[in-house]
Amino acid sequence: MEQSRFSSPIDLKQVHVTDEFWHREQELVRKEVIPYQWEALNDRIPDAAPSYCMRNFKVAGNMMKEKSAKGSSYVAPTYTFRGFEALPEDKNNPDPDKFYGFVFQDTDFSKWIEAVGYSLTQHPDEELEKIADGAIDIVCAAQLENGYLDTYYIINGMDRAFTNLRDHHELYCLGHLIEGAVAYYQATGKDKLLKAAMRFADYCAEVFGPEENQCKGYPGHEIAEMALVRLYEVTGDKKYLDLSKFFIDVRGTKPFYFDIEDEERAGYEGRKYHKPGDEGNWFVRNRYWYHQAHKPVREQSEAVGHAVRGVYLYSGMADVARLCGDEELYAACERIWDNIVNEKLYITGGIGGSHMGESFSYPYDLPNDMAYSETCAAIRLVFFARRMLQIKADRKYSDVMEQALYNTVLSGMALDGKSFFYVNPLEVWEEGWDRDERKLHVKGVRQKWFGCACCPPNIARTVSNVASYAYTESVDTLYVHLYMGSELTKKVGDSEVDVKVETALPWDGKVSVKLHGEGVPMTMALRIPTWTENVKVSYTCQGELVNVGIVKGQLNDSVAGVSYNDGYLYITGNWEDDEITLDFDMPVHVYKANNKVRENIGKVAVTRGPITYCLEECDNGKNLHLYKLDVAAYKEKGAIISENTELGHKIVTLEIPGKKVVLDGAELYEEVCAEKEEETTLKFVPYYAWNNRGVGEMTVWVRV
Amino acid sequence: MEQSRFSSPIDLKQVHVTDEFWHREQELVRKEVIPYQWEALNDRIPDAAPSYCMRNFKVAGNMMKEKSAKGSSYVAPTYTFRGFEALPEDKNNPDPDKFYGFVFQDTDFSKWIEAVGYSLTQHPDEELEKIADGAIDIVCAAQLENGYLDTYYIINGMDRAFTNLRDHHELYCLGHLIEGAVAYYQATGKDKLLKAAMRFADYCAEVFGPEENQCKGYPGHEIAEMALVRLYEVTGDKKYLDLSKFFIDVRGTKPFYFDIEDEERAGYEGRKYHKPGDEGNWFVRNRYWYHQAHKPVREQSEAVGHAVRGVYLYSGMADVARLCGDEELYAACERIWDNIVNEKLYITGGIGGSHMGESFSYPYDLPNDMAYSETCAAIRLVFFARRMLQIKADRKYSDVMEQALYNTVLSGMALDGKSFFYVNPLEVWEEGWDRDERKLHVKGVRQKWFGCACCPPNIARTVSNVASYAYTESVDTLYVHLYMGSELTKKVGDSEVDVKVETALPWDGKVSVKLHGEGVPMTMALRIPTWTENVKVSYTCQGELVNVGIVKGQLNDSVAGVSYNDGYLYITGNWEDDEITLDFDMPVHVYKANNKVRENIGKVAVTRGPITYCLEECDNGKNLHLYKLDVAAYKEKGAIISENTELGHKIVTLEIPGKKVVLDGAELYEEVCAEKEEETTLKFVPYYAWNNRGVGEMTVWVRV
Repeated sequence: MEQSRFSSPIDLKQVHVTDEFWHREQELVRKEVIPYQWEALNDRIPDAAPSYCMRNFKVAGNMMKEKSAKGSSYVAPTYTFRGFEALPEDKNNPDPDKFYGFVFQDTDFSKWIEAVGYSLTQHPDEELEKIADGAIDIVCAAQLENGYLDTYYIINGMDRAFTNLRDHHELYCLGHLIEGAVAYYQATGKDKLLKAAMRFADYCAEVFGPEENQCKGYPGHEIAEMALVRLYEVTGDKKYLDLSKFFIDVRGTKPFYFDIEDEERAGYEGRKYHKPGDEGNWFVRNRYWYHQAHKPVREQSEAVGHAVRGVYLYSGMADVARLCGDEELYAACERIWDNIVNEKLYITGGIGGSHMGESFSYPYDLPNDMAYSETCAAIRLVFFARRMLQIKADRKYSDVMEQALYNTVLSGMALDGKSFFYVNPLEVWEEGWDRDERKLHVKGVRQKWFGCACCPPNIARTVSNVASYAYTESVDTLYVHLYMGSELTKKVGDSEVDVKVETALPWDGKVSVKLHGEGVPMTMALRIPTWTENVKVSYTCQGELVNVGIVKGQLNDSVAGVSYNDGYLYITGNWEDDEITLDFDMPVHVYKANNKVRENIGKVAVTRGPITYCLEECDNGKNLHLYKLDVAAYKEKGAIISENTELGHKIVTLEIPGKKVVLDGAELYEEVCAEKEEETTLKFVPYYAWNNRGVGEMTVWVRV
Repeated sequence: MEQSRFSSPIDLKQVHVTDEFWHREQELVRKEVIPYQWEALNDRIPDAAPSYCMRNFKVAGNMMKEKSAKGSSYVAPTYTFRGFEALPEDKNNPDPDKFYGFVFQDTDFSKWIEAVGYSLTQHPDEELEKIADGAIDIVCAAQLENGYLDTYYIINGMDRAFTNLRDHHELYCLGHLIEGAVAYYQATGKDKLLKAAMRFADYCAEVFGPEENQCKGYPGHEIAEMALVRLYEVTGDKKYLDLSKFFIDVRGTKPFYFDIEDEERAGYEGRKYHKPGDEGNWFVRNRYWYHQAHKPVREQSEAVGHAVRGVYLYSGMADVARLCGDEELYAACERIWDNIVNEKLYITGGIGGSHMGESFSYPYDLPNDMAYSETCAAIRLVFFARRMLQIKADRKYSDVMEQALYNTVLSGMALDGKSFFYVNPLEVWEEGWDRDERKLHVKGVRQKWFGCACCPPNIARTVSNVASYAYTESVDTLYVHLYMGSELTKKVGDSEVDVKVETALPWDGKVSVKLHGEGVPMTMALRIPTWTENVKVSYTCQGELVNVGIVKGQLNDSVAGVSYNDGYLYITGNWEDDEITLDFDMPVHVYKANNKVRENIGKVAVTRGPITYCLEECDNGKNLHLYKLDVAAYKEKGAIISENTELGHKIVTLEIPGKKVVLDGAELYEEVCAEKEEETTLKFVPYYAWNNRGVGEMTVWVRV
């Protein structure tokens, strides 16, 4: 690792997103998602499963007006389809002394307050801030004297706290609390929640650690690793970094901690402990893999197990590697990154091929119709990418970050911000979502709200925070990883440069970067995406015009102050009233998958710029599996590229020559013959925008 | 229905299978499976899950030497992966008073005794018969005074008998007991078990029926419907036919009986009864479908739900339709048959596309790698086909019966008779069976024995009984549905005709049928399979030679006494020392699937005669998904057809020109380009014989 290339995310308060594309998304979050979410946190959404989140904090903080005559008694969570959950016997009349919901229900608040924090940096809102402060008061009232803050155990009894790290998500709650608290602190300067998070983290730093009297456990669901680093970066207290590093180092060591705690629990639960068999057994093996705990993380090379957990862990590993200068850990991050990108990444930037354990599948297993490709997993992949970029600006990270953001992350939310995909299939058809029990996880339409409401608030916090993925900075360099209309201020020593980006990306490849300073020396590091082949760059520096071209990844000209490394163009100057313009060509790409991907043999997918396209029934008709893209005709005639607003905002659609195979007759099997085909035109729309015009078939991959 | 075309299965004692192909299978069953199964029934197989079957009968019949000091107490079965099961706390020391195993464990005996019965007709065996008689004594000792015979309730308490028809399989046990008892009676003339079965059936005929004081329930797992018909046909007691018809008529009527009994159970189990929601809900809907109880069976048109249960029901429906002259019920059977054949049948004769509920999937959903295609379901499809043939000889039934028998049923057992497939995938590869949790049901190798040991004994009883699918008869007609070397005697009035069939099918299309009688008038009804296009038939009748040709399904010549209907050639004569020879051409067929089958778009499968072929790794190499069959080269050069014995018995293998796509490099996605291909030869082996030469990839469907 070259420390000189390290960078940090830009302070959100220094940047304002003005971009047509992203501003629309941020306004959806501000106007639709955040208020709706607050209602959901308070169980005020009719016909939605109650969250119980704020209610649990009130019960834990003795803020409930009523009290049950019976007094409180332990509500054991039972394992449901989505995780460990405690439900009231009478849904309309929950006991006022009890905890309800998922064991990780506290994080509904934490994710919400994080989104609120980011949103406030972009759009101050006194009313919202007041609601948030009130919520924080409720949350903080629940905190115990010793700093512990997880309502499940506060309500049910602290004697069992930290006895089921594998399933009960206390450290996951800690992680999200930190993320929310830091975001809100950075946005508002208010530190009440930050202090609460620090006290909980302090308590954990006493409980967990390498000393003999400390617990050797680690999070069942990762996030604390990267959250503790963030807390360290805000507070400067190295204890948090140490705890993060401890969690990372202890994971995957033998004996398997989750077995140790299971045996201990068996003792006081009065049940017989069954020692699991050897690792050869499938279920047993997957027990380790699911938690990325099959071997020490430094020795890992393949992304396995629960995808969201995995990418949270890898994000934390990258953070710790950077801050501790830990080359071995960094090498593991690189191996795992490459493994994801070379073997386990959907062309939509999604990850997680298997719904069993919401997990990475085996190499090259990327099913389209049974995909998991959870919205949240794509979001965490963005986290991991940004952290790798902070270590080294290389477009291999930013390309994927962009791919995930513009496709799977945005696909997760309807264009009206009112419904959400948890799972993002690359192909759907009616019987698939309606009659196929193997695809219960795949929905044909976005859902209003889920009991396990992870995706909506995660989209909210990511979209509100998108600028922190667009820009990172070091002392004298501003890295531009994503291009979006925005205004920001870069501090260089005591001076400042105002930067104003204008672009119509992702639809048009022209970018203008206006710089204003008083001869301030600064390097602009501009990503040249792999989706472009030829780039014209011209800029003025102190009024002097310079032209630079990049053709097929090679810098055309040798110009003083200009260099090109790993897909980033570095332009150094003493900026006054200057402008850099970039003109990316945006050809349509017709991609095939590696033929190890059995699912996609004989098929292609279409992309342009960062956008992956799909066919929808409403544009093309039924039986999309019978459509073929005519590669020869496409190579001759090209695609028709049209800007239009049929989806309520500007998009680019593509028309490409194709063929439709005529439906066969009634015979199930017949002697092979040539397929009867009709000429047709395939109309492609951006994948993120699918299922916004009624229910119907969709496919990303098309036969050739 | 034309009653004149009705036929009955031939008496097994009148026929002797001498066929090279089938005799080998029958000897495997006799020498390997039946003895092994007897050991399994008695829990004497090391490393296999105990059956507890004979042990339960002994406990029920107070024949256990020891007695537990604690006395007996109810062992509730719990729902496991495979059904309701009761397991001892200490596996090595089961309580001598208790019931263990699946609730349907009694049927392990019934399936075994059925196979024993059939086997004894082909190969008398005093020793085996003695063991069987001893087993029957144990079983009969367990029967209650009132005739009831299901050890689960006899041991656990009769107060709960018939309170959970949905899950607890008592009527399924009745059905299998009848099938076993009739087979043993027909083979040996010994009626002890038959009488026990009749007494149990008598008891059920009192409990269930249309009268006010009778229970309106029906079997959760069908088979009793067809078994009761068999008991009626053996005993002539119409009560059994009436009970079968009652079960068929009451199924699917509203209110749903399984809800009624569930509510009743909730009462005395002291649990709250949750009334299920409306039928729109997936799970609720599938609750009905699973049991083919979503509507009255006469109104059904689509094969749905648990495949084995479904085809058992349809078999019983066909029996009742025939015996009661019930045209409406017959029409339902025909609709359902056509639905299976046109939309839900694997090219291996397997059924059941989904492992969720071991069920028929939606139309045209025939996944290869995730197939369920249970061995037992193919066997029941053979049952259904034979019953439809008994109503009307039409090769649309016998073609499918043959396809199921020669491919999926035989694939279920290894060539050494020592291991078995429960599930018969049409494509496997290593990661698929080793790392894919979604395919836990698919095994890459046959298993030794299963806890839910349905398939091995079912293969045993089917193979031993194969002659009853080959031949049915009416007063003056012998129907030959399948061609296999065999000798039989057909009674016509007081006369007899000896029939001797010789053939090397399924490998060679020549068939000789020698007839010997004293001028006995009889019609031979000979199936002309759809897999042949040109058939030369010549025969002598009282020494006079006649030639007949069938070209593309049309009779060439008009000959007195010869007709051709629905794929059957009818030859009537007064037979003396005569011979009919048939010469079927056996071209290789390269089939495509209907393009509504998404899974098989752009692929073909190869068959010859009744045999479906596959590619195996050991012949062709890894990555079978990269192989293509070169249709143009095949049409020019044809296939090389070779007889060989590399699998330990005579088989025919095929070599067809093909191409192998070269593996791509490391990139997961790249700009589309022509596939790089190498010329190769594809070596096909019979599907039933796959996985007999070590572990490796296999595929039935190959790209073109």
